[in-house]
Formats: sequence, structure tokens, C-alpha cells
Amino acid sequence: MANKTLPGRDEDFSEWYNQLVIQSEMADYAPVRGCMVVRPYGWALWENISAWLDAEFKKTGHVNAAFPTLIPLSFFEKEKEHVEGFSPQLAVVTHGGGEELEEKLVVRPTSETMFGYMYSKWIKSWRDLPVLIVQWGSVLRWELRTKLFLRTAEFYWHEGHTAHATAEEAQEEMLRILDIYEKFSHEEAAIPVIKGRKTDSERFPGAQITSSIEAMMWDRRALQAGTSHYFGPNFAKAFDIQYLDRNNTLQYCETTSWAISSRMIGAIIMVHGDDQGLVLPPRLAPIQAVIVPIFRSDAEQGAVMEAADRIFGELKAAGVRVKLDDRDNVSPGFKFNDWEMRGVPVRIEIGPRDVENRSAALARRDRPGKEGKSFVAQANLVPEVKGLLDAIQSSLLQRATEYRDAHIHEPAGYDEFKQIVADGWAYAWWCGSAECEAKIKEETRATTRCIPADQPEGHGSCIYCGQPASERVYFARAY
Amino acid sequence: MANKTLPGRDEDFSEWYNQLVIQSEMADYAPVRGCMVVRPYGWALWENISAWLDAEFKKTGHVNAAFPTLIPLSFFEKEKEHVEGFSPQLAVVTHGGGEELEEKLVVRPTSETMFGYMYSKWIKSWRDLPVLIVQWGSVLRWELRTKLFLRTAEFYWHEGHTAHATAEEAQEEMLRILDIYEKFSHEEAAIPVIKGRKTDSERFPGAQITSSIEAMMWDRRALQAGTSHYFGPNFAKAFDIQYLDRNNTLQYCETTSWAISSRMIGAIIMVHGDDQGLVLPPRLAPIQAVIVPIFRSDAEQGAVMEAADRIFGELKAAGVRVKLDDRDNVSPGFKFNDWEMRGVPVRIEIGPRDVENRSAALARRDRPGKEGKSFVAQANLVPEVKGLLDAIQSSLLQRATEYRDAHIHEPAGYDEFKQIVADGWAYAWWCGSAECEAKIKEETRATTRCIPADQPEGHGSCIYCGQPASERVYFARAY
Repeated sequence: MANKTLPGRDEDFSEWYNQLVIQSEMADYAPVRGCMVVRPYGWALWENISAWLDAEFKKTGHVNAAFPTLIPLSFFEKEKEHVEGFSPQLAVVTHGGGEELEEKLVVRPTSETMFGYMYSKWIKSWRDLPVLIVQWGSVLRWELRTKLFLRTAEFYWHEGHTAHATAEEAQEEMLRILDIYEKFSHEEAAIPVIKGRKTDSERFPGAQITSSIEAMMWDRRALQAGTSHYFGPNFAKAFDIQYLDRNNTLQYCETTSWAISSRMIGAIIMVHGDDQGLVLPPRLAPIQAVIVPIFRSDAEQGAVMEAADRIFGELKAAGVRVKLDDRDNVSPGFKFNDWEMRGVPVRIEIGPRDVENRSAALARRDRPGKEGKSFVAQANLVPEVKGLLDAIQSSLLQRATEYRDAHIHEPAGYDEFKQIVADGWAYAWWCGSAECEAKIKEETRATTRCIPADQPEGHGSCIYCGQPASERVYFARAY
Repeated sequence: MANKTLPGRDEDFSEWYNQLVIQSEMADYAPVRGCMVVRPYGWALWENISAWLDAEFKKTGHVNAAFPTLIPLSFFEKEKEHVEGFSPQLAVVTHGGGEELEEKLVVRPTSETMFGYMYSKWIKSWRDLPVLIVQWGSVLRWELRTKLFLRTAEFYWHEGHTAHATAEEAQEEMLRILDIYEKFSHEEAAIPVIKGRKTDSERFPGAQITSSIEAMMWDRRALQAGTSHYFGPNFAKAFDIQYLDRNNTLQYCETTSWAISSRMIGAIIMVHGDDQGLVLPPRLAPIQAVIVPIFRSDAEQGAVMEAADRIFGELKAAGVRVKLDDRDNVSPGFKFNDWEMRGVPVRIEIGPRDVENRSAALARRDRPGKEGKSFVAQANLVPEVKGLLDAIQSSLLQRATEYRDAHIHEPAGYDEFKQIVADGWAYAWWCGSAECEAKIKEETRATTRCIPADQPEGHGSCIYCGQPASERVYFARAY
């Protein structure tokens, strides 16, 4: 059986990605326009992503619930920007139970309206606040150009929707979540992200502030990897979410919403993957270590498999997500390539000589060839493998951070700006005008990514119009 | 603030149930016909149900994945019984992205067809089998008469879909899952169920064998609480799921599907609840123990809260899902009733005298009043609470089993049968004819629930027609 191969990552990044998603069995195309099937290997990764975020949300007082998949079309008409933003993307149910519906329903593209409707029923008093509910599920947006994980008609996510008494509390919530997203990206996904607020033209439809985390892919394009929105009282007014404050006065709530979706999987693939396939961060990898036994004769097989079984048991008991590849119809070399394609962080090889020497060979996925290989005593295998997983996790973040930083530049003028965004990100002064932003996009295809909060104060000249500017913005071509 | 009250369970069971679901904040009616919102308290229960089942499925080799919410309408036309069964219940998407679709899509009512389509792409060889995939999510069936949790247009479930090389293996899988469902019901939900196969008229559309677990509610009606289906090669032929066997011959797969849905929550409510509200089995309860501090003066408050905080910390560290109710705007009595409504298994009361005596009062939810109250030393609180939780879990199962067994009878003749099914279940000989089954349903509203595999051999006379019968069947009025 021959191993699968990929186009070179640097030759054709787009095709490398598409084929890698399929060949690693992360996902497949579904027989419905723009939809995907997330296969078990991809879903196991999503479960690990979800488990960490879910635990973090619960630690910070959030609870989960389930709201309907179908939303009355009329709900979208209650918030002006929201309806304009989502109308072109809606899938509409017109018939149910064999009859035409009196009121059309849409498959939710996002659930601010449904949460808003229910919150107006549930919230009465300041004592009911804050309400901090998260929903895990999928939503549907009729996309024209789709790409597995990055942009599909149906995608998987959590959507948090919170209601607060004051603007201050709601904005704190927006930032608290953004911090959780940043922490997740750095510590779990090993992806260095830049957080900040979006410009007005890039705001979520209906939001007063949209903030995001932005990640650099291997092709230097930017990916918005998570968003957190502050709505002010917009949705509270549209859906009549009011509460009696401590003075018995009726007040509108202030609300937020936020999400990380299955496109995070796309980010992990595009940031860490290489010509051999996926490179998964150990903390999220469905399989952290794979054991490949190597033998020629039956006699060798007995001794090798005995050691392999024992090591498997020890690693499993120590909490390592380990797999023993005991397939008998493919060669060890095939297995090496196969698990490289799937991005398993550590490979453990055991052959007859290892059995004799009570040792094993470890190969780390992030450093191909001899450089990433080490030989360890079986007696030390558990701590060695755990240490290696930690080392790989740190190394991936460091490598991605260096890569990102090497491709972000501060342009002195617009000509340099154009050169920079052709193959990287520009961190540039911007006057705040939507016109300059639009012109830049038109002329360079680079869009504003986000405006970081923690930038040094000061003033400069807008990279486009030269007028005074008080903030710097990241510009990049984006997915 | 006044506590909420319920209609008596024995006066108006249906209204008792409806109000209990709302007042305990398990779920609410959604502004979409027949749909519900599962509120955080109800969803936390569902998460506990899901976590146990998910772990059990993974232990038995199953993996999770995600398939599209929308399915082409044409897929349903490939299996004759399946299309007949589901056509009247479909919600149909006719427009997407502002345009009329060339091919209509339906919001999935179940996913055999979509899994079938993908399995035909993925499965090539006997080495690929079995394929054991579970999807957690929701489905939609346009129901006319709905009831929260028991029958809603959209409901939450897992759907397992498996493909096997042989009929034997597929049937074993069907039974393996049915055993897991039974184990879950008994050990986790404290609901004694009867498992068996369905008659032909009650089969799932497209199945060769449907098996189920059947539970008795407090009103003696039956609830089908989980199903496991064996399809033979029906879906494999409809979707061309074929594999090369060891002799290189093309064979059709044998498939199964199975599910437990959020109606299990309805079963837990209807089996265990009482006039005061929910009674949740400890192993699934979102909150297993609630601490209610009792004090009058500020001085008392300090000492009581200090003890309450300490006990809270100890129980939490010991893995008990515990809540400290420190609300300052309601009385202890209000809190008692409030947590009784929500079915928290154990209440821990701490007042000034308890602080002095280094004791606490425990009240068990399943035994109201003095009978269920005990006083324990604070030093023993953790083991006492844990022991009590176990005792409540066992007691609930025992009580439900006794109740069920007291309401199942073996009728000697059809007159007695009619009396029995007016208020219980009948375990009766049946000749196997669909005609007798239909007549019984017409005349008594009782339907066949299931045919247990482990019934004593022998023969009798059909309870309806008197002809020879070789099997006994459970009959009951059902939800």
C-alpha cells in the first residue's frame, strides 16, 4: 500500500491545505452545497478544543443551554444592521409537515435574536443579572466561496450570549472572553494571536464594538480566529430586555456575544502543518503518541509486542493519549508516514534491538529526520514522553511567534506598505476614516485586522492620506 | 417572595408535569412552533446524561463526528419505508442565499441517509469495518401534538450509526447498545426499564429489527426511552455501502442505528417527581447537595457563614456537586422549597446551634419531612453526604421498580386485559398478527411496547383472538 502525498506547502498552499484536510481524515466534503462532514479525527480535535474552553467558561460563571435551530424570519428584522448583515446568507424553511408555513423560519446563522427574545422573558430584576449562557452547536450561513473549516455554509462553534446591568460590566465581559480566547490560542493551540478591536467597517452587524483575535497563517494571510462583541443596548431595545434596577427603575440590559468556531481547526492546520502533513499541538492532539512496533520474524514479534503492549499500558495509565499501531498489513515505514500525515506529536519505535537494550526510539513530529530523534531507556519512557510533549508544545508556539514577528513590519510610507502587505502584515498609523480603509483594500486587498488596546501612545500620519492619526492598526490580506 | 406551587401530581398529572418543567427552569417554550429552549438547569442534566453515555460508547470503540444539519430531500426517497415514515414530518428549506434552491433540503429528522452516503465513500475493504460513529446534536420532526422533552419538534439526542461486515456482528451491536441503554437507565437514571424488540408495526421506518427500552411513568403510561435498530442490508443497498471481503468479493454492509434523546429528561421527571417538584437521581443531578445557612443576627451570620463556606469547600474538594445558597433576599423556608422544586437530592442546613454543636442537619429530597432528616457531626459530613447520595440513588431505583412491578399484570382473558391496561401494563400472549394488535389498540388505546428476549419458553393463547401464541408482549398506553 502506498502512502498518500501532498503538494508542497510552499508551492501551492491552497491545494496543500485542501488535500491535507482530506488525507488526514479531518473532514470531507458533504453532498450539500458548501457543507462539510467533520470526521472522527477532526471531531476529536474539536472535542479537545471545546473541553478546554467549556471548562474555562464554567470557571468564570457561564452555563450552557440549547436554543432552537430555527428562528422566525421576522426576528431578524428587529435590529436594522443585523438584518442587513445576515439576510443574504439565510437558508429559509418555507414548508413544514407537508404544508406551507404562515411564518417563514430560518436555520440560525447566529442566535442573538433568539437569545434576546428569551432573555426578555426571563430577566426581570437586577438580581437576575448577569445572565451568562453559552450554546454549543452549529449555525448556517449561505457562503458562496467555501473552504473546509475556514468557511463552510454550516460550521460548528459555541456562541456566548450575556446580559448585564451596565455598559461597564458588559464591556468587561467582552474583554474577559477575549482574554480567554487569547489564552486558549497561546497555551493550547500554540498560535500567537493579536487581540484588539475591529474598525467600524469590520464590526459584527448590530454590535457597538467588535473585538477579535487575529492569527497569521503560514502563507502570511490573516485569519480572524475568534470574536467578542459588545452590543450596548441595541439588542435589548430590539427585543425589550429590561430589568428593574435597585431603585425600581426600568433599565435596558447591555449585552455581548462571542464565538470561536471550527475554523480554529483550519488555523491549527495552516499555522503548524508542513509538507508531511499535520503538526498538532500536543495539548489538543487526539493522539499524543503512537507506538510503532518493528519486527521481521515471529520470534521478534513476540518480544517486541510484549514490550509495546507494556509501554502502551504505562503511557495510558499516566494519562497520555497513546495509540499502539498493530496493523499487520502495512510496513513500519508506511505507518511512520501515516502518523506524520495525521500530525501525532511523538512516535515511539520499538524493535528487537530496543527490546534487548531496554530502550526505545522517540521521534518528534515537529522536527523531521535525525534532529528530532532520541533514544531513551524504557524505564524512563513515561517522563521522557511527557517532557517531550511539553517541549513540542512550547516549541510550536515559539516557532509560530518568531514566524509571525518576522512577517510584521511597520511601513514608513504607502509604497513600503504595499510591499509589506503583499507578503506579510503591516502595523501602520491610520486616521480612522472608512474611506482610507476602503481605498487601501481596493488597491492592496489588505484589510484592517484589529486595533490593539496596548499600543504605545503617540501620533503619526495616516499611512494612506497622511492626515494625523492617533492609533495604529494591523493590515493584512485575510481569509 | 412567595414560592411557586404545582398542581397535585395525582390530580392532574399532565398539568403537574407541564408546570414542573417550567417552574424548575428545566425548559421553556420557544417562539417556534413545537420547539423548546432547554434552560441551563435542564442542559446541565443533559450534559451529565451525555457524559456517561459518551464515555461508555468510547469504551466500546465508538467515535464521534459531525454530519450536516441539512440533507437533500432526494436522499429520503432512496429507502421506501424510510421516506414513507418521515415525509409527513419534514421541515423543508426551499431558499438559500436569497435564491430558490434547485434541490430542496430538509432539516434532518434523523441521519441514516447522510451517514449512508458518506459510508459508501469511506468503506472499501473488510479492514475498514466496523465503522462505529456517533453524532451528538439535534434533529427536527414536525410534530402536531408536542410536550416539553417528551415530544418536541426539535429534540436533542445522540444518533449512533454503525456498519459491519456481517448480520451477526450488526445484531450484536444492536444488542450491545441496548444493554448500555439499560445499564444507563438502571444505574444512572434510577429507572427500571424493560428491553425487547418491537413488533413489525412499531418498527423504525426501514429497520429489520427495532429494539427498545420501555419505562413506566408515574401515571402508568409507557415511555419508549431509547431505541436500537438493525437494518440488515437495507440502507447499504439504498446507498451502495459495499466492501471487499477477505476473498476479494464485493459485499453489502449490515448497518445499525440507535438513540437516546432528551425525552429521557422527561422520563426522569415523570418517574421520580412528586408534589413538591423534581426528584433527581444523585448520579445525574446538576447539584447534588445544597447548603442553606440559617441565621437571624449579624453575629450569627458570621459564624454560620464561616461553617457553611468551610463545608462547601470540603464537599467540593471531595467531588460532590455542591451549591451554597447565600441569597440574602429570601428566607431559609423559601430556599428549602426552591431546591425541592429543583430536585436537589440532599439539603444541608446549618444554623447557630449547629455551629455550636459542630453538627449539621441533612434532609433527603426523596423522603419529605422528619423521616428524611438526620443530624450529623461536621467532621463526618463528607462521608455522610456521599453515603446519603448513594442511598438515595438505590432507593429511587428500588421504589420505581416496586411501583412498576405493582402495575404490571398478566391477564387471564381479554376482559381482564382491558381492565389492566386502563391503569397499568399487561404482559400477555400475542399470536403475532398485526390485526389483533390493531384491534387491541383501537379498543383499548394500548399498544405493544416490546417483546422481551428473556421470557420463559412456552405457549399460550393470544389475548385477543385466542389462537396459539409463542411469545408474550408488554401492552400499555404510551406517550
